[in-house]
Amino acid sequence: MLKFAVVAYKRPGFTAEEFLRYFESVHAPLARKLPGLRKYVRNVVAPDVKRKHPGWDLIVELYFDDRESMEAAWASPEGRAATDDFRACVDLERTTWSVVDEHIEIAPPRPPAS
Amino acid sequence: MLKFAVVAYKRPGFTAEEFLRYFESVHAPLARKLPGLRKYVRNVVAPDVKRKHPGWDLIVELYFDDRESMEAAWASPEGRAATDDFRACVDLERTTWSVVDEHIEIAPPRPPAS
Repeated sequence: MLKFAVVAYKRPGFTAEEFLRYFESVHAPLARKLPGLRKYVRNVVAPDVKRKHPGWDLIVELYFDDRESMEAAWASPEGRAATDDFRACVDLERTTWSVVDEHIEIAPPRPPAS
Repeated sequence: MLKFAVVAYKRPGFTAEEFLRYFESVHAPLARKLPGLRKYVRNVVAPDVKRKHPGWDLIVELYFDDRESMEAAWASPEGRAATDDFRACVDLERTTWSVVDEHIEIAPPRPPAS
């Protein structure tokens, strides 16, 4: 499985709420149509009074079978539509993306602290 | 489950390779000791000749049962050791983090394209 990660900053004209509403109602439906997309994850910054906002608004994770499938998805009509829409709703100067190697570890159960 | 996401940029003195070697051999073992850590994911930028490097080197995901468990982890001796080490190996000016709300969608199987 190949994972593609995007650290997205909203377009300056949007409030955070407008951006997320747009992303869920307009962009995500376009992304779901990507041929070969196996898993689609949006990580939305949660309110936290103790810490400052990280700047980015969303980390998006797209999973495909392999790099070839992902390239075919981007090159398809659905991929071009999703990419065009994405470019229109984010701050392209700050938004970044990359294929990543994902290392997952599940912690074993531990006895409760005494 | 609570997810905490970190977009990490290596400390300027490190090459990308040195940073990742340090992270895997020194930092990750400290992070694994965090009390209450349920899942620990490192997403390492993969080489890609077609695209530019995103700038960040790593997206780290830490999962806890809830916010209280996470705060207890950061406040523990293991949490302080992991945090101190983290601050020493990343570029703190650029590295950002946040609790995130994670929305996971698994794509249903589709018939092969004709």
